[in-house]
Amino acid sequence: MTLAIDEDGVRSAAHMPSLIDAIEDVLIEEHDGQVLMPPRTNVISEKRFLRLMPAYLRRSGFLGYKSFHGSMSEGVRYVIVLIREADGEIVALIDAAYLTALRTGATSGVAARHLARSDRVKVGILGSGLEARTNMAAISAVRSVASACVYSPNPERRHAFARSTSDTLGIEVRPVDSGVAAVADSDIVIIATNTGMHGPVAYQGAWLEPGQLVISIGATSPFLREVDAETFVLADEVVFDAAPEQVFEESGDLLAVSEETKQLLRRGRVLRDVVANGYVDSRPGATTLFKSVGTAAQDIAAARVIYDAVVARGTARDIGVIAMPKKF
Amino acid sequence: MTLAIDEDGVRSAAHMPSLIDAIEDVLIEEHDGQVLMPPRTNVISEKRFLRLMPAYLRRSGFLGYKSFHGSMSEGVRYVIVLIREADGEIVALIDAAYLTALRTGATSGVAARHLARSDRVKVGILGSGLEARTNMAAISAVRSVASACVYSPNPERRHAFARSTSDTLGIEVRPVDSGVAAVADSDIVIIATNTGMHGPVAYQGAWLEPGQLVISIGATSPFLREVDAETFVLADEVVFDAAPEQVFEESGDLLAVSEETKQLLRRGRVLRDVVANGYVDSRPGATTLFKSVGTAAQDIAAARVIYDAVVARGTARDIGVIAMPKKF
Repeated sequence: MTLAIDEDGVRSAAHMPSLIDAIEDVLIEEHDGQVLMPPRTNVISEKRFLRLMPAYLRRSGFLGYKSFHGSMSEGVRYVIVLIREADGEIVALIDAAYLTALRTGATSGVAARHLARSDRVKVGILGSGLEARTNMAAISAVRSVASACVYSPNPERRHAFARSTSDTLGIEVRPVDSGVAAVADSDIVIIATNTGMHGPVAYQGAWLEPGQLVISIGATSPFLREVDAETFVLADEVVFDAAPEQVFEESGDLLAVSEETKQLLRRGRVLRDVVANGYVDSRPGATTLFKSVGTAAQDIAAARVIYDAVVARGTARDIGVIAMPKKF
Repeated sequence: MTLAIDEDGVRSAAHMPSLIDAIEDVLIEEHDGQVLMPPRTNVISEKRFLRLMPAYLRRSGFLGYKSFHGSMSEGVRYVIVLIREADGEIVALIDAAYLTALRTGATSGVAARHLARSDRVKVGILGSGLEARTNMAAISAVRSVASACVYSPNPERRHAFARSTSDTLGIEVRPVDSGVAAVADSDIVIIATNTGMHGPVAYQGAWLEPGQLVISIGATSPFLREVDAETFVLADEVVFDAAPEQVFEESGDLLAVSEETKQLLRRGRVLRDVVANGYVDSRPGATTLFKSVGTAAQDIAAARVIYDAVVARGTARDIGVIAMPKKF
């Protein structure tokens, strides 16, 4: 039996604290060598692209992949195929557009839990889209948020973001009219944009303030940029959510970084090791950049949480058997 | 709207001559540089494996992938996700176990059409499984089959194969009690086995006869073998269905071949070029080995034919929308 879980199903089953815990668990699983995750595969024509991201969580007992295809202009379809290791059954096909935003937020939540210096924080947000929302939700799940400021070039969008985030999370969120105003005096900065193709890069290293944790989750393709090269040089610590070489390949932010800086970044920390081994930067006022591109392990771990919740609620649509096992 | 096409749906929509034409077309599309097909991805644990095979047919206007997962002992599930390029819609999820056997047969049919020397042929078959059946069906779609002999170690299975193939194709098929007896005096040899893990390799180069076309479609993993190394040395011509390096990696038959032989095979022909450019071996009585491992382009081309047929018959199950496009 395979369940089809659409976006509404994902939304109603989503519980950010559970997702954050699941991402933390899968990072430890990965650190312990229990996650198999080959490089993602891309097929790219002039018109459309297809990307396949498989992962096998041996300790969790789930495997599968996310596929996404389409074009930036006409839209992208995300599907996660979730497979139970015990019997090989395809337990769910999940519309993974919203789920991808959730797991990206949840991963930032794990980063904030381990890397943010204060318990009570002021948050600066660059971007007003879905990922900005899920990231803000994740930060407020692991830290007490005193207040937040948001900047997005479109005034209507930043006002709408401020209103709805304020309502949902019960905190003061103020729209401001520049990026630097949004991040000034922030303990945590969330950058979740599609900048870099048109207009300036969203965040400049010159804006870094003592003790600040900067979380950048956009610019996940080579032609996007949201954090300038200076930020990578000036941050006291840079933590990635994947192996440095993978981030170098996938994010336009790293294309702009010099080879010399990359040499230093190759020796930097990866979130799975921070979570597993613990890490506290003892330099007073040290700044941290968390740069995330997303991984298939995060997808499968998040999909499993959603699947469990949907099963518990009994709300999903059974689409029967997609593939019968063939014996040899 | 996505259609779920199960094995019965595939079986009732299958028309071997159309599949052979579709494979021939996609081979020309590939020859013309219109097929994007990155290396397949494998994720392998002690318990199960997952393989992903994407392809993008630019001229045909379809893309997608086959995934298969499971274990040889407990069974393997095959799924093809078929995507229409024009609007990015996932038009079908297809149970691809039987479809894989069909497209493998259809590819052999293309090979026989271009490489078999006589119009009226005697066929020798090693193996009595599903792939042996679809290959036999394909050969009889492109050549007039005078008679056939089949060998499989299990007497019941070879008798059952002979009876049912005889009934289905309306030709004399005789079960025999050794491999050499099955292939003796044959114009075309079909080898479709799971040999090599236990027991001897199914076909020996010593059995080659003048003018014979040997088609080997099994041994598609490194731990299987069905054609001995001698066959690769003795055959006057070796044609692959994919780039030689890919076949070297995927088939156990090639693991047993010397580096010297591989050097020669690297300069050998690939089916797409034979189809596109034409090829006749002018040496009298020359022997040909066609070694096939299967490609994602073959899968997507065959899936598209099945999808079209199912739509025309109006028989498929609509499972609604799996993923809504997300705009950026």
